[in-house]
Amino acid sequence: MSKAKAPQMCDPDAPVVILVNPQLGENIGTAARAMANFGLSEMRLVDPRDGWPNERARKAASGADFILDGVEVFDRLEDAIADLHHVYATTARPRGMTKTVITPEQAGRDMRARAGRGQRLGILFGRERWGLTNDEVSLADVIITAPVNPRFASINIAQAVLLVAYEWYRHEHGETLGMETDEAPALAPGLKMPDSRPATKAELIGMFEHLESDLDAAGYFKSPDMRPTIIRNLRNMFERAELSEQEVRTFRGIIRTLSGIRHDRRRRDGGDG
Amino acid sequence: MSKAKAPQMCDPDAPVVILVNPQLGENIGTAARAMANFGLSEMRLVDPRDGWPNERARKAASGADFILDGVEVFDRLEDAIADLHHVYATTARPRGMTKTVITPEQAGRDMRARAGRGQRLGILFGRERWGLTNDEVSLADVIITAPVNPRFASINIAQAVLLVAYEWYRHEHGETLGMETDEAPALAPGLKMPDSRPATKAELIGMFEHLESDLDAAGYFKSPDMRPTIIRNLRNMFERAELSEQEVRTFRGIIRTLSGIRHDRRRRDGGDG
Repeated sequence: MSKAKAPQMCDPDAPVVILVNPQLGENIGTAARAMANFGLSEMRLVDPRDGWPNERARKAASGADFILDGVEVFDRLEDAIADLHHVYATTARPRGMTKTVITPEQAGRDMRARAGRGQRLGILFGRERWGLTNDEVSLADVIITAPVNPRFASINIAQAVLLVAYEWYRHEHGETLGMETDEAPALAPGLKMPDSRPATKAELIGMFEHLESDLDAAGYFKSPDMRPTIIRNLRNMFERAELSEQEVRTFRGIIRTLSGIRHDRRRRDGGDG
Repeated sequence: MSKAKAPQMCDPDAPVVILVNPQLGENIGTAARAMANFGLSEMRLVDPRDGWPNERARKAASGADFILDGVEVFDRLEDAIADLHHVYATTARPRGMTKTVITPEQAGRDMRARAGRGQRLGILFGRERWGLTNDEVSLADVIITAPVNPRFASINIAQAVLLVAYEWYRHEHGETLGMETDEAPALAPGLKMPDSRPATKAELIGMFEHLESDLDAAGYFKSPDMRPTIIRNLRNMFERAELSEQEVRTFRGIIRTLSGIRHDRRRRDGGDG
């Protein structure tokens, strides 16, 4: 790990993840990994059942050690959130509390807006078996509840961390697939990145005519009436594939091999092939 | 568990989750739980390392046993996707392949749109250590890549399942915790819908194997080393075209005509042709 990389791993504005009374080291480690996936780096633990550090957490973190190394442990939730400006509590269902309930997506936007104004943010995640107590939730400003299947609403704690972290990251980096570093040019979603340059229409039509002429020679078009329709459908099919120039050449090679017909556009006696 | 609850657990339109060569039972179980959280129910395994059933998967599923009970196991990915119309491959980063790359969010919308048109959908997740092979990705129509921290891009497999399942569920159950939205599902940008029913993967793979076998017979592959790459490129090219069932039949007719080789899948002496 080079030192130069570390600063880019972390975003000092990113919310702090606070796990309240977590039971399993595995979940702490998996949560750390999920945080690293989405640019969060600061984790705090309130009264972890098995103490700290925890070897199982480290195993499960799959390399997100820089997060575990920075973990701070507190006895009381009040102390763990003391320096924060705005705190979100995650719950499986809205509680009967007079508190705003938002989705992870809304939380993602809200966190970005607040971080942009210099607020320090924290997100609370409860213990595996029964989440946060009402007293703990009451220390938060807002509740985050994910839209889940009401018949199976219990989300694993590390999965809950992932969802909120994903929404935090997505609202900054959302549409660019995280490629906006200088490693590679940004790939706009939905766009294809062909290996070689796209075929020109002339190349494509050359390929169509090659195929159609060989099909004529092989007696493919039993009914002359249907020939125009079939050809149109074939051409549509290939247009849809948005072939590259290389693919057109490959495909012409295939037609030539299968039909055994050579179309020598230019005779060559010399040996450059 | 009352019987009345079961039907609401499952959504028959929901995409099938296909784990390719998964190594750890824990991840299979956690993936099942994530599926249950977001209304997915059908899981398929291709060549699970530790066989099936798997006791560690059951422990990690935290009650999502109805998903594990229904798991189907396959030796080959081709068989696991045979009955599906549209398949998404999840990768940590865009590969150097000419295939559309979309975000989980776009995938959520796209899956809703396609499921609404009666298409059967599948999502591929690769093995823990190194994901999907290029050959496996080439069997998919589209790549899903989540926007992640480029410095820490490796997502746990169950976490990846969670993200895509979350986006599937969110685009039906909305921004508002279960309140329906008016927003019509939209196809991901750059994706097109063919006129007649899309080919199943079995039909498409049948066409690939037909073409490849005739190319073998005709001596197309001069260099055996290049054969796998050429085949992968060809498959990618055809996957991109999102062929309809009719187009697959047309194309097989073309191969048959050009090569002059008949593949009688079922010998017939009677005269219905």
